[in-house]
Parts: sequence; C-alpha cells; structure tokens
Amino acid sequence: MTPFCQEENMGKTVLTVGNVKIGGGNFAIIAGPCSVESEKQILQIANAVKEAGANILRGGAYKPRTSPYAFQGMKEEGIRLLLLAKEATKMPIISEITDIRTLELFENIDIIQVGARNMQNFDLLQELGKTKKAILLKRGLANTLQELLLSAEYIISQGNENVILCERGIRTYETYTRNTLDLSAVPVLHELSKLPVIVDPSHATGKASLVPPMAYAATACGADGIMIEVHTDPECALCDGEQSLTPEQFEKLCKQVSMIRKTFH
Amino acid sequence: MTPFCQEENMGKTVLTVGNVKIGGGNFAIIAGPCSVESEKQILQIANAVKEAGANILRGGAYKPRTSPYAFQGMKEEGIRLLLLAKEATKMPIISEITDIRTLELFENIDIIQVGARNMQNFDLLQELGKTKKAILLKRGLANTLQELLLSAEYIISQGNENVILCERGIRTYETYTRNTLDLSAVPVLHELSKLPVIVDPSHATGKASLVPPMAYAATACGADGIMIEVHTDPECALCDGEQSLTPEQFEKLCKQVSMIRKTFH
Amino acid sequence: MTPFCQEENMGKTVLTVGNVKIGGGNFAIIAGPCSVESEKQILQIANAVKEAGANILRGGAYKPRTSPYAFQGMKEEGIRLLLLAKEATKMPIISEITDIRTLELFENIDIIQVGARNMQNFDLLQELGKTKKAILLKRGLANTLQELLLSAEYIISQGNENVILCERGIRTYETYTRNTLDLSAVPVLHELSKLPVIVDPSHATGKASLVPPMAYAATACGADGIMIEVHTDPECALCDGEQSLTPEQFEKLCKQVSMIRKTFH
Amino acid sequence: MTPFCQEENMGKTVLTVGNVKIGGGNFAIIAGPCSVESEKQILQIANAVKEAGANILRGGAYKPRTSPYAFQGMKEEGIRLLLLAKEATKMPIISEITDIRTLELFENIDIIQVGARNMQNFDLLQELGKTKKAILLKRGLANTLQELLLSAEYIISQGNENVILCERGIRTYETYTRNTLDLSAVPVLHELSKLPVIVDPSHATGKASLVPPMAYAATACGADGIMIEVHTDPECALCDGEQSLTPEQFEKLCKQVSMIRKTFH
Repeated sequence: MTPFCQEENMGKTVLTVGNVKIGGGNFAIIAGPCSVESEKQILQIANAVKEAGANILRGGAYKPRTSPYAFQGMKEEGIRLLLLAKEATKMPIISEITDIRTLELFENIDIIQVGARNMQNFDLLQELGKTKKAILLKRGLANTLQELLLSAEYIISQGNENVILCERGIRTYETYTRNTLDLSAVPVLHELSKLPVIVDPSHATGKASLVPPMAYAATACGADGIMIEVHTDPECALCDGEQSLTPEQFEKLCKQVSMIRKTFH
Repeated sequence: MTPFCQEENMGKTVLTVGNVKIGGGNFAIIAGPCSVESEKQILQIANAVKEAGANILRGGAYKPRTSPYAFQGMKEEGIRLLLLAKEATKMPIISEITDIRTLELFENIDIIQVGARNMQNFDLLQELGKTKKAILLKRGLANTLQELLLSAEYIISQGNENVILCERGIRTYETYTRNTLDLSAVPVLHELSKLPVIVDPSHATGKASLVPPMAYAATACGADGIMIEVHTDPECALCDGEQSLTPEQFEKLCKQVSMIRKTFH
Repeated sequence: MTPFCQEENMGKTVLTVGNVKIGGGNFAIIAGPCSVESEKQILQIANAVKEAGANILRGGAYKPRTSPYAFQGMKEEGIRLLLLAKEATKMPIISEITDIRTLELFENIDIIQVGARNMQNFDLLQELGKTKKAILLKRGLANTLQELLLSAEYIISQGNENVILCERGIRTYETYTRNTLDLSAVPVLHELSKLPVIVDPSHATGKASLVPPMAYAATACGADGIMIEVHTDPECALCDGEQSLTPEQFEKLCKQVSMIRKTFH
Repeated sequence: MTPFCQEENMGKTVLTVGNVKIGGGNFAIIAGPCSVESEKQILQIANAVKEAGANILRGGAYKPRTSPYAFQGMKEEGIRLLLLAKEATKMPIISEITDIRTLELFENIDIIQVGARNMQNFDLLQELGKTKKAILLKRGLANTLQELLLSAEYIISQGNENVILCERGIRTYETYTRNTLDLSAVPVLHELSKLPVIVDPSHATGKASLVPPMAYAATACGADGIMIEVHTDPECALCDGEQSLTPEQFEKLCKQVSMIRKTFH
C-alpha cells in the first residue's frame, strides 16, 4: 500500500552513483543551478545545496534552447567547472548531453541526462546504451508513458540497464504553469517498470512558489527522488531564474520532504 | 511555507455544512459510491465510509453520461435514498445537479455539485448563485484555472459565496489514465483565490490502484480535502467500478492521509 | 472520391429551413454578426451578407461568456430584432440557446444553436430532442468526435433527427490561433454519420486574416457549409470583432468558395 | 486575398531542387513509400507516382520508430536504392536523416528531411545549417508554430536559408485520427515567414480515406505542396500501410488538387 514498503521495492532497479543509491526505497535529492555560470557560482551553490540536504549536484553545461539566440551554456568549460564542484563537495554530478559527439567529455560525470527534446533521439539513446553510465531520461513534452518506457528500452536493449525515468511536466492547454506536472506518472511507471522515477517540479511549474508543494506531492505519491533548481541569486540567473529556489527555501523543502517520507515507514 | 500553517489560512473562506467545516485548514474527506443504486447499497457504503474516516457522503442520483443509452442514475428516488443515509449516519451529503428545474429536490442536500460538463453552463451557475447552498464546482475537462475562477464568479456575483473548487483531472493526449490530474491546480488556486480546493483522484485516474498515491499527493500539496469513490462491491458497481476502492482500502488511505497532514503542523 | 458526388450523398440527411436545404450536396453559407447589437446593425449586416452570398443569417442574442462581467447579449430583445431581419431579408435565422426555459422565444427562429460549452448539457439536448426544430450542435472545446455523435444521439433518441454538426476548433497547446480547427472532423463525421457538417472558421481561428483560407479548406474537404462572422464595423463590434470579416471580404470569400465547389462536380 | 496571387508571393523563398521549384507560387507533390523496402518496390512506386503527377520522390531509409524492436529502415542500402530510383525517374529525392554522422551518405539526396521527433535536436539542425542542402523541417508533435520558426532559425543562422516547413499533425486528445492536422498552420506560417510550407496529410491522419480530403483542404488554404504516402501494395507495406494510397487513388488526388489550384488564378 505504501510507496516505500519493502515488498514493493523487491526486484526494483537500484543504481549506485558515487556514494548515493537511487531506486528501491532510496531517495535522491538532486539540486543545483539550471546552468553553470562561473566557478564561483557553481562552487557556492554546490556547497549550499549539499548543506541543505541534496545528495546529487545538477548543473547544465550544454543547454538546448528554443531560440538559437539564447544563452547556450558554457559547454566544455561548464563540464570542467562541474568536476571542480564534484571534487570540492564529493557529490555525484548530473549534466545534460545534447550531442553524442561530446560523449567523452562526460567520462567523469556520474549521471548523463537526456532532456525532454531528445527523448526520441533514438541514435543518441542507442549510443548511451553502449556505455555503462547512469542515464536520466526525461519524458518528452508530449510523450506518453508508454513511449517513455520504449525510449528507455532503446538504452536497455543495447546493454545498459542503468536508466532513471524523470517526469518533468507535459504540454497541455493550461498556460498558468509552464507545463502540467503529471504526477500520476509516478505510480503508473512503478506499476509498469522496475526503474526509479524522479520528479522535476522546477521545469514542470516554472514558478518558484509552486515548487515546494509539488515536491511534497511527488514525495507523497512515491517518487524515488526530486530534482530542484536552486540558485543563490535567482533574479540574476542566466536561465530559468523564475523557477529557482534560494538555498534557504530549499532547506525547508528538504526537511518537509523528509518528514513526509517518514510517514510511509 | 507549509500548506496548513495558520498565517496562510488567514482570510480563507470557511464553509460549514452540518457539523463539518471546509477550508481554512480543515480537511474534508468525501466518500461514497459513484451512483446510488439501492437503499441497501447506499446505507451499507455510508456506514462503511463513515467508520473508515469520511466526514461527508457522496452519491450520484442524476448522472450525466456521454451516451444516452447508459445508466442515467436513480434520479428523484436516488435523492430520497441519500436523505435516508444522511439521517442514518448524520453525515452531510453531496450530490450532483444537472438541470436547474430539479433544484427544489436538493433542499436537504448539503452540498450541490456542478460537474465538469456543466462548469460553463452559466445559466445553471447563476441560479445556484441565488441560493445559499454550498456549491462544489468541478473544473471542466479542458478549462483553465482562470476559467474555473470566472465560473465561480458567476455564482458569487449573484450573492452566494459558498463555493468549493474541485480539481478532477483534465483532458490531455495521455491515454493510460482516464484524465491527467493537474495537482499544481491546488497551490495555484490557493494563490489566486480564498476558496477551498478539493481533489478527486478517482475520476482523474480512473484506476483504483492510482487513487491512494494521488490522494496522498493531493494532501501533501495542500488540498482542503479529497473526494473518493468507495463501493462495497466494485466489480458489480453500475458506474465507474474500476476506479472504486473497497472500504478496507479506503480506511488505509484515510490513515495515511492523516499522517501526512500531521507533518505540516 | 469527391465530397459532393451523387453516390456519396445517397442516404444523407437533408434538412429544409425556410427556402434553404442543408446537407446532401447542398451548401449552407451562414453569416452575420457575433451579437445582435441594434436594429440598425442587424438589418444592415443582414442585407449585406445576403447580397454577398449568404443564405442563412446568424446573430447571437444570448451570449455565453467566460466572465460574468462581459456583455451577455441583448437576450429577448435580440431575438425580436433577429425576427425583424428575417422578415426584411427572407433569410432563415440561426441563434444560440443557453437555457431551456427560454425555448418558447425561439419559436420563429429556424435553427437553434447549441454552443460548444453546452455540448454535454444533456438535459438541454433532450428537451430540444422533443421539438421538431433544426438544431446546430457545436463540438465542445475538448470533445472527441465520438462524443459529439453521442450528444447528437441525445437529441435524435428523443425523436428529432434534424441535427447539424459543427466543427469550430478544439483546444490544444497552440496559442497563436484561438483554437485549433480540426478539419479532419469533416470527412470523419461523413464516414460515421449521415448528418450535415458545418465548419466555423471564425471562432476556430479568432483572426480575420485566417478565416478565408480556412473557409476554402473546409469547402475543399467536403463540408456542407460554413459559418462566418461578418460585421460592417469590426473594430467597434461588442464581441469578437477581431475575427469578423467586412462585407467586402466576405463577398470575395463566397466567390472563391463557389469556384472550389465547382471543381468537385 | 488568394494564396497564389503574384503580390503575395513577392519576396517569398523559392528553392530549386533538380528541375523542381518549391515555394513562391509553385506546387510540390512529394510522393512515395514510407520506407524503401527493395529495389523492385522503390522503382515500381517511383515510376507510378511520377506518372500520376508527383514531382519529387520520397522514401525512408533511416526510420525513427517508437519501439527499438520495430523495423528501423534499410539504412545505407535504402539510400543506395533511392539514388537508383532518382537515376531512373530523374525526380529529385527526399529522405530523412536521424544522425548527423550519416550526413555524407546524403550527398546526392536532394532534400534532407528532419522528422518531427528531431525538430528540437538543435545540434543536428546547426550541422545542417552549415551545408547548402534543402532541408524539410517537420513540426514536432507538440510544438508551437513559433517554436517551428525558431528551429528553422537554427539552420538559417548557420548560413543555410534553404528551409521548407512541414505541417504533419499535432498531438491532441482526439484519438480517431493518428494526429490532428492543424491546417491553420499554413496561412499563419505564410504570415510570419517567407519559407515554403508543405502539408503531410498521410502522417497527420493515419488513414488512407482521409488523405484526399485533407490534401484538397491543404491546397485550398495555400500550401506550397503536399507529401503523400503511396504504395503499390499498401496491405503488405513494412510501415504505415494503413495510411498509404494506391497509385490509382493518388492519380485522382493529383487531378483534383490541380483543379483546386486553378481556381486561385
């Protein structure tokens, strides 16, 4: 009955990245800025989120943006800065890949993210399936859960079973939120698959004030983790500042999440 | 920060129906069958849900069905049976109206429900605005939150402020669930309005196994209550049996919901 | 192969309203203002659209509006003015009903329109099914074609087979147009039903510049008619001026539609 | 007023591929099988569609499929067979690319197609922007017209202005058709851009019987061309047989399209 009970977690996929386990009753708290902006910025935020309760650091180096004239990320230099933050905090790192030709740069990145726009970039998925990397696969903007699982299968069928699914909101007619967070994806994916399921309320809602309640909801319906955008200066963020929490807000969120999880044991 | 903290509830609308308060930090658990089917059925379920933790009884007498050839409800006789159950259990009753010409039959029904298909039946809303009844207004299948609030305004502008909003899933391209439950509606409506917000995970998901996790999620993101379909014999229900919980499942759900609520105090 | 060929029209429903036939290879051009605003306005537009090529006059008297604070139509007085225009031009009239209690006012209105928001107001549909009136039933904002046909069945099963279906755009994530005109509805409904199918490109697109190309497209895929908003002074229209054509624009549209129709004979 | 009038075509982009012009009042009829299946199949279909009225041959060699276990195309061998068909018929060829690393294989392919799933694969778009190839860019399943234009900008901003836009249906709640063909995209894209706009009714509807009416509608609202799946033996096609026309059906379609186009001159 409860999402974290031992029986339900039997047979579930458990991934280990650095000192963190994902899936099977463990809870991942992935946090960090939308984009790496400078050495100072990523180190400051990395330390802040670690202290507040995160166990994995996120940061975008390659940013797929709707317009070619928007900030596209620090790219190779961004990866280098993320690895500095990894060394400084000992946290595992997740960052997004957009082009298979950059794969070797991700050698020391712990989790490779495939973004919503690339969920059906099957050539990319198959190449990632030939590695042993942990892959976080985000649901596409208008993809069904069945399609998400079949995209995971593109990775798994090549030999790499280290796949994490991620619900990040789907596109609907509602315009008040950036996307519509489909939390029923969490129990549905748990029914259909043994893979861990992470929820990203930051991209789903696009509004900082909605991130904590949606993070609590994700926790309560059994997600294996959450991914939260945190920035020490949201108003000056180069990307997605509106949806970023401050470290203080994030710390409160982590405490509440922890209390909700305890009610299921 | 927390959905139930005292400051956040200041100024919020609190309705009183029978001995139950709705809104402003109180939590409504509305439960019962999709349709009233017989005196025995409604009395049995009413007693079961009361014992399990419900504080309001639901039951459909007038059923708007997509096809004219489907079961349309027991109508006037259904209302009579609901009132028997009210007398037997002392629980307030909620039932759906579909035609303003039946209004007088609802005299002793405590909360009148306006279903998703009638959310923009403005003539019906205005007539209900001339009463003093509590009105539960369900979000339409493809209506924005802005439109839901403007439909509430059709009732309020006639003088009746006793309006409860209800999120029950919206229509998207995803077909695995019956609808897509948009839980971000809860914090958004709380930001934009002082009205209570109830969540109906039964109609939203259409699958009994998904109802408990979505009820927990609704609780965790700050809903003022939940509405759950319960049937003592789901497989023989005349309507929506697939999404009905048994009284035993419902009791477990109520206990978990209660624990989640406590984490916010 | 062609939408207007004789074989395809065998067995199709043909309605007669005044001196106009609808369905079965005939083509209805319904035009007029969104709302009746004054005697002068409706008479002026009625004459203009008749001269330009319309064979049925439209005009809203009861206007269902999202906000209770928007202009709600001239109501009973609007109906009276429409009947003056009918007398003056000898054109049959179509106008929307929103409340069954006003039915007797529609005695001399030739076609009663049920708007998108009331497509699943089943009590209203059943009452209209007890009359012999021609009923134009608009597809709801988020209703499937199957649901549209079942709503038509609510009318037909009461004994009134005089139903005209209307595609007027559905709600999607695209925001550039007011709605998304789903023209495949036309051949699909013709495959599944014998009822005439009308297309309303004005409400579907919400932009005057898009109305002619969409009217041509509707004609080319086999629609039994089109419904076009025309106003002699679009910028001052009380409702939906942005999507209204001038009589001059409408006249050009009628000529082009006529040429396209001829290619199918 | 008319989509093909000389004034409206002033300043529009005109591409030349082989002996065919696209855009600016010219009309492209792209036809062929979903997938290249054998030398005999592609030569037979190529000759048939040329005779029936097509001026460009389509054929898939690399097929992005939702499931990794579905037929993925003949790949390099498929490209070789397409070039045989090009030599035999002198028609320009269009085929889809899914991985930038196969670019050199497309040297003699006249138009490179970017499919709906790759519309926001920005790295692929930028690489194609460094070539001088004609690129047909399909609208993503849930992408706005604004996003389609920004994706075109990813190609153009690298120096390649030879971009053709393609509407192929969007994902909505309607399940009767495979997708919902959004024909208003045609006049909207013509208002916002000077690029040619092609319509693909085969993928949009997923049903052969709906392809002709939607092709006529596309023509009537001003499309610069259509893309039609044709197969000599639809029931045995390895991919998408349900939506394929026979050469005979396609020939009738071409004649009707031609008649509709003439009404605009």
